[in-house]
Amino acid sequence: MSLLAVGTLAFDTIETPFDRRTEILGGSVTHFAHAARFFGPVHVVGVVGTDFPDETLRGFTARGIDVRGVEITPGKTFRWSGRYEADWNTRHTLDTQLNVFERFDPKLPESYRSARFLFLANAEPAVQLRALSQMRSPELVVADTMNLWIDSKLSDLEELMRKVDGLVLNEEEARMLTGRRNLFQAARLLLERGPRFLVLKKGEHGAFLIGREVRFALPAYPVEEVVDPTGAGDSFAGGFMGVLASSKVIDPTALRRAMLYGTVTASFCVEGFGVEGLENVERARIEARFEELRSLVTP
Amino acid sequence: MSLLAVGTLAFDTIETPFDRRTEILGGSVTHFAHAARFFGPVHVVGVVGTDFPDETLRGFTARGIDVRGVEITPGKTFRWSGRYEADWNTRHTLDTQLNVFERFDPKLPESYRSARFLFLANAEPAVQLRALSQMRSPELVVADTMNLWIDSKLSDLEELMRKVDGLVLNEEEARMLTGRRNLFQAARLLLERGPRFLVLKKGEHGAFLIGREVRFALPAYPVEEVVDPTGAGDSFAGGFMGVLASSKVIDPTALRRAMLYGTVTASFCVEGFGVEGLENVERARIEARFEELRSLVTP
Repeated sequence: MSLLAVGTLAFDTIETPFDRRTEILGGSVTHFAHAARFFGPVHVVGVVGTDFPDETLRGFTARGIDVRGVEITPGKTFRWSGRYEADWNTRHTLDTQLNVFERFDPKLPESYRSARFLFLANAEPAVQLRALSQMRSPELVVADTMNLWIDSKLSDLEELMRKVDGLVLNEEEARMLTGRRNLFQAARLLLERGPRFLVLKKGEHGAFLIGREVRFALPAYPVEEVVDPTGAGDSFAGGFMGVLASSKVIDPTALRRAMLYGTVTASFCVEGFGVEGLENVERARIEARFEELRSLVTP
Repeated sequence: MSLLAVGTLAFDTIETPFDRRTEILGGSVTHFAHAARFFGPVHVVGVVGTDFPDETLRGFTARGIDVRGVEITPGKTFRWSGRYEADWNTRHTLDTQLNVFERFDPKLPESYRSARFLFLANAEPAVQLRALSQMRSPELVVADTMNLWIDSKLSDLEELMRKVDGLVLNEEEARMLTGRRNLFQAARLLLERGPRFLVLKKGEHGAFLIGREVRFALPAYPVEEVVDPTGAGDSFAGGFMGVLASSKVIDPTALRRAMLYGTVTASFCVEGFGVEGLENVERARIEARFEELRSLVTP
């Protein structure tokens, strides 16, 4: 048992400047797992309603994603609907129906509790903390969050920050949490509040890794045609954590390498709707993009 | 005679969210030369009015900037005034008085015409072409441009593009010139129109170098406190060209190295008003930032 992720499985309705899709497979752990699976087994904890097709769960299993931790409860699966503006940077949430996720109380199967790597996808911080409290002694815990919790659940989020090794957040969230516009100043303040490292996501401008012993700046992989950016952050986290879970040691070199792989898995994600971009990729194409990205950024 | 730059010397009045300065030394070749001088001699062609202090020109000379090509003509020096919004990304031009620059007809001193490296700072493309036509056989010519000329002087600009080795432009200009939002698609189209390489500036998000034989993506140096972004692009070009002019060969390795140095000189520029950030820097601090940046981006 190596890599565990806790978060949402959902049906997304997505409008882009060029196309529209209705109720396609989405959710944070869905994207995470579809990216992490290239590097080893990944185990998932989440909740779906009775409307979630068995066939879809079998699709997860066929791709090496263990869904024994996905609870099926009476009711409807989480639904989200959003629209992207022409510049891709602005996203409007049109509708959120939490449905069965509203009462999500993560219950980790006994065999999951000794996982070495844990990813807590974006959820109410109290829920993330409940999941974390069931773990024995994970080697590396990384959490994602969002502006909603910074506004409404800050003290829970502060507690979570004290208990995780890494925090994934975007520029805006880092600024909200610290009141600093400069990302490196913001990062320094955040590192004093608990995490050993931060992954600061800058969308099409790439990501920074800032830790106590490591600083690494990486542009996005130059995708020629963005189809749907939904799940890019979770796909990044999936590649990042998947590679770390397969690494012998977690040192600055391994973290930098994980940033490159996370960037690559995110690049495949945005080339299709939902997880389509990640579904039919072979490991060889992951490696080819990894080498291409490495060559693009190496001075 | 190695590195020559043609462009403006000006007095800038600048409002930032935190401060304001009136009629400070500015202009494209001023910034360029103050960055390039760290790497070797730099020669300047431009025009100033009789109001331009002799003392300021002597200050250039004292820093290794040759101003014999700066013409002093009756009238007032170019004046520009602008205001930055709180996010630094939005700049409003409040006033432009071309003054003596309106009739600028670059006349290269005989000894300048055999320069090996030429930078044509932003000016009307016809003026840039007239400067270029006076050169013997420069080894490397790089030009800057702006949205105004894309709108109003496109055919001159197209001619210029056919005659230069490198073009420096920002994201918006690349998109205007090609109609493509994706920067790598835009770059491919631009490379078909003449230049061997492009430097695509993305402000606080860094810069891309895209050429026929080289692709390199680099974030900005993480400046903790931006004071005034004016001249960042020209300071980048100064470091970039200054390093190239001191390189034995111009190959992809030299171009990547020049990108790092350009990023470093731009970082010092934005830490002060006008060229103040570049005035009192020693070469050792340039080297220290170069190493820091290289370590920040090396996978």
